Amino acid sequence: MTMSSSNESDFLIGVDYGTESVRALIVEAATGKEVASAVWGYAHGTSGVVLDAQDPNLARQHPADYHQGFVHAVRGALSQAADWPGFAADRIRGIGVDTTGSTPIPVDANGVALAMQPEFGQDPMAMAWLWKDHTSYAEAAEITDLALNEGRPYLAKCGGTYSSEWYWSKILRCERQAPKVAAAAYGWVELCDYVPGFLTGHRRPENLVRSACAAGHKAMHHPDWQGLPAEDFLERLSPGLGRFRQRYDPEVRTIDHCAGGLLPELAAQVGLPAGVPVAAGAFDAHLGAVGAGAAPGVLIKILGTSTCDCIVAPMDAGIPDVPGVCGIVPGSILPGMLGIEAGQSAVGDIFQWYLGRIAPGGCGSGPEDHARFNAEAARWRPGESGLVALDWHNGNRTVLVDPLLSGLLVGQTLHTTPAEVYRAWIEATAFGARKIIDRLAEYGVNIERVINCGGIAEKSPLVMQIYADVCGRPMEVSRSPLTCALGAAMAGGVAGGRYPDIPAAQKAMSGVRSDRYLPDAPAVAVYDRLYRLYSDLHDAFGLAGASVPLDGIMKELMAIRREVRQGQEAD
Amino acid sequence: MTMSSSNESDFLIGVDYGTESVRALIVEAATGKEVASAVWGYAHGTSGVVLDAQDPNLARQHPADYHQGFVHAVRGALSQAADWPGFAADRIRGIGVDTTGSTPIPVDANGVALAMQPEFGQDPMAMAWLWKDHTSYAEAAEITDLALNEGRPYLAKCGGTYSSEWYWSKILRCERQAPKVAAAAYGWVELCDYVPGFLTGHRRPENLVRSACAAGHKAMHHPDWQGLPAEDFLERLSPGLGRFRQRYDPEVRTIDHCAGGLLPELAAQVGLPAGVPVAAGAFDAHLGAVGAGAAPGVLIKILGTSTCDCIVAPMDAGIPDVPGVCGIVPGSILPGMLGIEAGQSAVGDIFQWYLGRIAPGGCGSGPEDHARFNAEAARWRPGESGLVALDWHNGNRTVLVDPLLSGLLVGQTLHTTPAEVYRAWIEATAFGARKIIDRLAEYGVNIERVINCGGIAEKSPLVMQIYADVCGRPMEVSRSPLTCALGAAMAGGVAGGRYPDIPAAQKAMSGVRSDRYLPDAPAVAVYDRLYRLYSDLHDAFGLAGASVPLDGIMKELMAIRREVRQGQEAD
Repeated sequence: MTMSSSNESDFLIGVDYGTESVRALIVEAATGKEVASAVWGYAHGTSGVVLDAQDPNLARQHPADYHQGFVHAVRGALSQAADWPGFAADRIRGIGVDTTGSTPIPVDANGVALAMQPEFGQDPMAMAWLWKDHTSYAEAAEITDLALNEGRPYLAKCGGTYSSEWYWSKILRCERQAPKVAAAAYGWVELCDYVPGFLTGHRRPENLVRSACAAGHKAMHHPDWQGLPAEDFLERLSPGLGRFRQRYDPEVRTIDHCAGGLLPELAAQVGLPAGVPVAAGAFDAHLGAVGAGAAPGVLIKILGTSTCDCIVAPMDAGIPDVPGVCGIVPGSILPGMLGIEAGQSAVGDIFQWYLGRIAPGGCGSGPEDHARFNAEAARWRPGESGLVALDWHNGNRTVLVDPLLSGLLVGQTLHTTPAEVYRAWIEATAFGARKIIDRLAEYGVNIERVINCGGIAEKSPLVMQIYADVCGRPMEVSRSPLTCALGAAMAGGVAGGRYPDIPAAQKAMSGVRSDRYLPDAPAVAVYDRLYRLYSDLHDAFGLAGASVPLDGIMKELMAIRREVRQGQEAD
Repeated sequence: MTMSSSNESDFLIGVDYGTESVRALIVEAATGKEVASAVWGYAHGTSGVVLDAQDPNLARQHPADYHQGFVHAVRGALSQAADWPGFAADRIRGIGVDTTGSTPIPVDANGVALAMQPEFGQDPMAMAWLWKDHTSYAEAAEITDLALNEGRPYLAKCGGTYSSEWYWSKILRCERQAPKVAAAAYGWVELCDYVPGFLTGHRRPENLVRSACAAGHKAMHHPDWQGLPAEDFLERLSPGLGRFRQRYDPEVRTIDHCAGGLLPELAAQVGLPAGVPVAAGAFDAHLGAVGAGAAPGVLIKILGTSTCDCIVAPMDAGIPDVPGVCGIVPGSILPGMLGIEAGQSAVGDIFQWYLGRIAPGGCGSGPEDHARFNAEAARWRPGESGLVALDWHNGNRTVLVDPLLSGLLVGQTLHTTPAEVYRAWIEATAFGARKIIDRLAEYGVNIERVINCGGIAEKSPLVMQIYADVCGRPMEVSRSPLTCALGAAMAGGVAGGRYPDIPAAQKAMSGVRSDRYLPDAPAVAVYDRLYRLYSDLHDAFGLAGASVPLDGIMKELMAIRREVRQGQEAD
């Protein structure tokens, strides 16, 4: 059932705020088909990020870019869409927004970003603290310690360790380091809440629509303790910090909630009717999962420089806290469902590091080098390289939750080639992916399908086939290459009444490519053996206090290689 | 004291039979100073080695090359020396010979190599079985098994495992695989004995001067069991094998023994007087150690694609069998001393593999790339890379004696550079070198100095400094770049009565460069910490049944890196 009463086409807009730019996507509401898409790169800083030469941990953004970005990107997309048969701006039924996070912004009592005011316009402390800002590592440790020492339950849903990337770490650091900004900060607003706020004019911190996703995954918000951490806990961290809790609506919203209608002046600027419904925002990965078809039993893997693995489960499925899984939050992905988020700290980053830094030895590595390496690596059979590796170059997010780990490669001989090493790193990330699947399944999360999205999923059949063979499961690939913006558009569709709920929008608008990667039985058998070696290394190097016999690993690698080669000769 | 009664200069010749060529070196007897040197590349096969396209394990040499090689190389050197003040061919006091090994050659009853006879001239089975021929791996295992099953002591002095490279493995395989050659083979002669044999005419297998070095390290000869393995043992391996024991003089000779005088016809061919004394031969590494200054308390490291580590100890020093040390043989290096040989299976080979295969990713690697990598790697401080590695790309010769091991690298991050990895491989070989030193010292072998020779020692200050810092000992470098031929010339000097014994010849003729590499205390301290990690990995991956906690390794690597960098900033 759809709620559209018209035979004419209608449309939705998804606005995706990334790290360097903002994209506006216009889709057909009935099908999800892409009508137009426009990108605008942020004007401030280096590729949109304000840096500090003295402090590599610092990464900020100027809120002005978020305002201008909306106007530029949406106007650009509307202009492109003008040629589409049946398109008209007044056929836009809703707007959804996804953003990076945790990216909190200090605001005044009216919800206006401090950096939008002349006094603070050049002050990085008053700007948006971008997700990858790591200046607050000491504050993060302080929060973790206090929660643990006081026996507070707040970390149970976010993997047991509070991160320097998250909401309260950043606020606490600003309170300590920038008294002028702290004094002016009436509230702190996540970017995914800030955008719907300024689009609809409902901006005051107390009344702002706060995303269940951002609140639950980054601000320790949970129904079990009636919202944010208790005021006395915040006050213990820093006197006065509790005021931000008072100015935060404890009732958080899922993406099917309508945050309001588009303000007339903004509507005029971009060329839309005033009042177009705007959905509550959420993080890019989660709306990406929605756009890719997140549903119970469907694991969505977003494969990029790192991965984000999202799955939902019914609230009554009895899912316990899963050790090492960094976020389990009601409504964070789909309304009415538990949202579960896991991930790998580095995937594409490892491939890029190896191809770009190690293997070429400074010769430079263009796309043609990548293609050559992929072709060479694809010629090897599973197990033939005699290598196995750990994919911890950037630590391990799930299931060990330990940033102080590093990469390992075992099995090199004087005959080892660069392409074999490259393949070993790919396989290591696949084993890491399987660890996550195994851990979720072990704790009762039902996984029937795996849908992949992101650049690697679209562009590397080699990676996808290895993932299928290592995990022993078919790997599907999302039909849309812009799942985040598509998911945002779906939210806009529900907020605007075009669909009754998210699953209905997904049913109409999302899908997978017809080509799937199916596990190859002999490869699965070899990878099962290699996975046992990976698991031994994983536990030996990653689990505190573990003592795992490793004396057979090198010989087992050689035995596997020999058997695979003999099998090949026999073919 | 010297035995020369003349004021005129006199001279010695060392002839060094390598894998691809033979070199003749003429030195001043009084000083060891190089007068002339000529190299002749073997004529047969590929770079002197007869290969088999069907069998990568096969490596043979044609004995004709050994005969012609002597003539070409010595004639060439004599021709060069003609310009030297005071030089005359009749002032040559003696000739010494060193060769590869184990390189056994089947011969007839007169000691003539079968391949020198027309019937066998093209048959690889009748040629010299070069040291790196690995066709006999099954036979080696059979020999090991039989010795172990019957409780024979023969493996006690050669590390517990008989090798496919060694004397009896090769003979046994020939007996089994080449009945015609086997039927014609009256004896089997090591190359280092074959050359003095044909130089002096004392060639009959029964009377041939057999080198203590070759017999002890490769043929399981030892005074504890009165020579070669018992005939019944050899007959159990293959009926008839015992005949080769009967035709093998049980009294083996050290390098101070004179094998005879140069035959007149050969002398005439090269332009020497007839009857010049020829010393008993020995293996290249061992005469290299002699040439570099081997003495009690002095470890000689010959650094090439792999390493050979040689040291001597007094017979009465009470040195027990040292577990994992592949050879402990009376007189094998210096007469009257225990010769102890250890080694690393790959050193220069690892650097070449990384620079030539992995890091350039196919871009090619000339000497300028090596120089650039060395310069970059030298800029890092010990511990700064956060990496530690195992140098087992070609297995581990000492102390694990296990060819079925492989290389390992731990600590990679997304910031790791190729030069850091290169340095980590160098450090790994240095830790491997320290393991050998530690093992020898632990069993009572006195080590006061370490003298390095070979191409790496001469050309890489980076490698030498790292070895000094890792081992916490000064690293000296042999003055002569041709220590094998120099050692052979010393043997010729003793055989010819120019010196009373080898130490006297060494005192006059060998020396070290004035520049030594001294350990740097802060680097030693950091490497001590890294060596503990290396040792944990070594034991965990290399010792059967070991269970070593490794969960702290990655964090310790990061801690060391952080401290080193902070220390650097503080400077």
